[in-house]
Amino acid sequence: MTQGKLLYAQSGGVTAVINATAAAVIETARSHGVKVYAARNGILGVLREDLIDTSRESTSAVAALHHTPGGAFGSCRYKLKSPQTDDAEYVRLMEVMKAHDIRWFLYNGGNDSADTALKLSRLGRAYGHEIHCIGVPKTVDNDLTVTDCCPGFGSVARYTALSVREASLDVASMSETSTKVFILEVMGRNAGWIAASAGLAGEDADAPPHVILFPERHFDAKAFLAKVKATVQRVGYCTVVASEGIRDADGTLLSDTGSRDAFGHAQLGGVAPLLAQLVNEKLGMKVHWAVPDYLQRSARHAASATDLMQAQAVGKAAVEYALAGMNAVMPVILRERDTPYRWKIAPAPLARIANREKKMPKSFLTRDGFGITAAARRYLAPLIRGEAATPCGKDGLPLHATLKRVAVAKKLVPWKER
Amino acid sequence: MTQGKLLYAQSGGVTAVINATAAAVIETARSHGVKVYAARNGILGVLREDLIDTSRESTSAVAALHHTPGGAFGSCRYKLKSPQTDDAEYVRLMEVMKAHDIRWFLYNGGNDSADTALKLSRLGRAYGHEIHCIGVPKTVDNDLTVTDCCPGFGSVARYTALSVREASLDVASMSETSTKVFILEVMGRNAGWIAASAGLAGEDADAPPHVILFPERHFDAKAFLAKVKATVQRVGYCTVVASEGIRDADGTLLSDTGSRDAFGHAQLGGVAPLLAQLVNEKLGMKVHWAVPDYLQRSARHAASATDLMQAQAVGKAAVEYALAGMNAVMPVILRERDTPYRWKIAPAPLARIANREKKMPKSFLTRDGFGITAAARRYLAPLIRGEAATPCGKDGLPLHATLKRVAVAKKLVPWKER
Repeated sequence: MTQGKLLYAQSGGVTAVINATAAAVIETARSHGVKVYAARNGILGVLREDLIDTSRESTSAVAALHHTPGGAFGSCRYKLKSPQTDDAEYVRLMEVMKAHDIRWFLYNGGNDSADTALKLSRLGRAYGHEIHCIGVPKTVDNDLTVTDCCPGFGSVARYTALSVREASLDVASMSETSTKVFILEVMGRNAGWIAASAGLAGEDADAPPHVILFPERHFDAKAFLAKVKATVQRVGYCTVVASEGIRDADGTLLSDTGSRDAFGHAQLGGVAPLLAQLVNEKLGMKVHWAVPDYLQRSARHAASATDLMQAQAVGKAAVEYALAGMNAVMPVILRERDTPYRWKIAPAPLARIANREKKMPKSFLTRDGFGITAAARRYLAPLIRGEAATPCGKDGLPLHATLKRVAVAKKLVPWKER
Repeated sequence: MTQGKLLYAQSGGVTAVINATAAAVIETARSHGVKVYAARNGILGVLREDLIDTSRESTSAVAALHHTPGGAFGSCRYKLKSPQTDDAEYVRLMEVMKAHDIRWFLYNGGNDSADTALKLSRLGRAYGHEIHCIGVPKTVDNDLTVTDCCPGFGSVARYTALSVREASLDVASMSETSTKVFILEVMGRNAGWIAASAGLAGEDADAPPHVILFPERHFDAKAFLAKVKATVQRVGYCTVVASEGIRDADGTLLSDTGSRDAFGHAQLGGVAPLLAQLVNEKLGMKVHWAVPDYLQRSARHAASATDLMQAQAVGKAAVEYALAGMNAVMPVILRERDTPYRWKIAPAPLARIANREKKMPKSFLTRDGFGITAAARRYLAPLIRGEAATPCGKDGLPLHATLKRVAVAKKLVPWKER
């Protein structure tokens, strides 16, 4: 075993394939004789010195992570304070890394995690304990800069396009006497990447989805209702895909306004029921709506093989970069060509990714703002290709990893939660 | 070609496998040299003399129906008037059958369709045109009597159990700092079969789903909140599966009350957001909710192989019964044993099925009413087994049948919609 350990942590919303990244990290590190610790519940586990010794997990358990959704070591939504205003947390993080001889830190998350990894990468020398920090990309929102796409996105994109195609066949077959308008709400607070992926379900004008609502465009009720009405008259039914993040002209989230009216709490979301109410009241049509919520980002059974391969590739590359002595970088996906789809992994400075957000280019939205362009299809199409098989047990349901999660003995005084 | 034609119609809510039944009907009839007409949009198509000549569909197009969700020939929600009060519709149905020499009528639906098929079966002689009427079982609600289960149910059951298992991994991995309670709303207005199937996702007390809400039990907010709170304290999070049909002590649908408050229309449903609001307000926990709606019953990509086989078997048997001269019967599924699961198809009189509804036996619900018993597991487990593969195109999405739907030339005066 090499001196020093590699610490891996998951951050923010989990995906259908983030554990495939974790598996690749562990397998690659093992092949280099490096021991991997995993933080329980992301960065909180580092603050709490709550570490898991992955060397206690069997080869088959680690292999099973490749087809297990969710975050096997626990993730968290926790914003570290800025070291300028209060560096206690960063001091603690370094103490824990030093105490356990962590030489390499891999932080698997979005732009916020990239920022954390970047800050830590700069503290090493100051604290007399050099660590190499690598950001590992993960987000269903597909909103990281530099990288062509984000592991996790391709699978939710495939789930969304697939669901639109299947459910629309249902709606189409009954629209004569039943539901005329079907509204599917998908994730995406600020960027409409997931909503856009629904467009892959069909290409010609009469194929579903007929209307896509993006957070990049202000919601125009009048234009929306006109489009829905015209579609029902022409096609017989209308499938609408709405991003949870659509906003009115004032920039207010519809889900917020709706939440206050109906549920009292914005966090409960629910753009679909509001749109359903609008269509039902203004057009007098029968409407059904669906909100898959977590189902969409945990649907490993419908994952994209391309997405899975990329999730594994960034995990493998992250370890190789770390062991090669790189610091403050992220393995990103670079697209070499659209057709046939070719991509490669390359290191990019965290400084170019931290706290930045990639929105959809205007060229991806049709002029009326209700659909995606050929350029968007060229970009999105390769990301949902291929089926990533999930082994099923004799109960007929997908098999998932069962980990021991053996805790590493603590060496420091307990962290005071603040 | 044999004299006379076989007419096939789909009725009510469609499923992930009703087209597999249609395919089996067409393939079996073809093997007997019998031409199959399909009514467009169910019984409405018969009234309107809007018939599709399936002999114009290629062998491969018909084969593709085996993996195409929705209702390929169109279904409808249309309640025929009682022949006692107004027999005009039944008279018209017989005229259309007579005009097109329909000797066999296969009606693919639930207990209401069974009633229609039964009534028609009795009219033949009176109208001087003998037809053999066969009811073909189909319903995701699994509420038909006599048959052990209903084609369509096993697949939505598998989708539900699978979704609970996947989404719960997501919730579990973030519950420390994010969502503590996840609520999944499933179909089932009067019978909790689909909600019960969620129980197959996990068996021990700490495995999700932790709480199932059935329409068979009055919703007790106090007991529900206590169970959720205790589960979060013990497990760290709580997955709730709620049937859309849960009612309060007065028998009022929660979704109705909720719909009036929030959306104004009962049909828009939404038990999950109401429960989410309740949990959030009373327990102060972060809650997420999902309503897959049509996604659950059109998820052919996640269909159960057992369900698919049974959907095909009832289609094949229905044709054989009809051609053998049987009348007013339905091919039902009889369970011979639980383990190993053995079943067979046998004819049952429509009179024993028409307008009746099968609820879950009390013995299937745990004493506290929040879970399923071992008896329920024995019944449900075999129905979700096996993966029913769906071929995917190069776009990475499931391939579905494309039909010509060539109309049969009309011979009668147009039907006046009334």
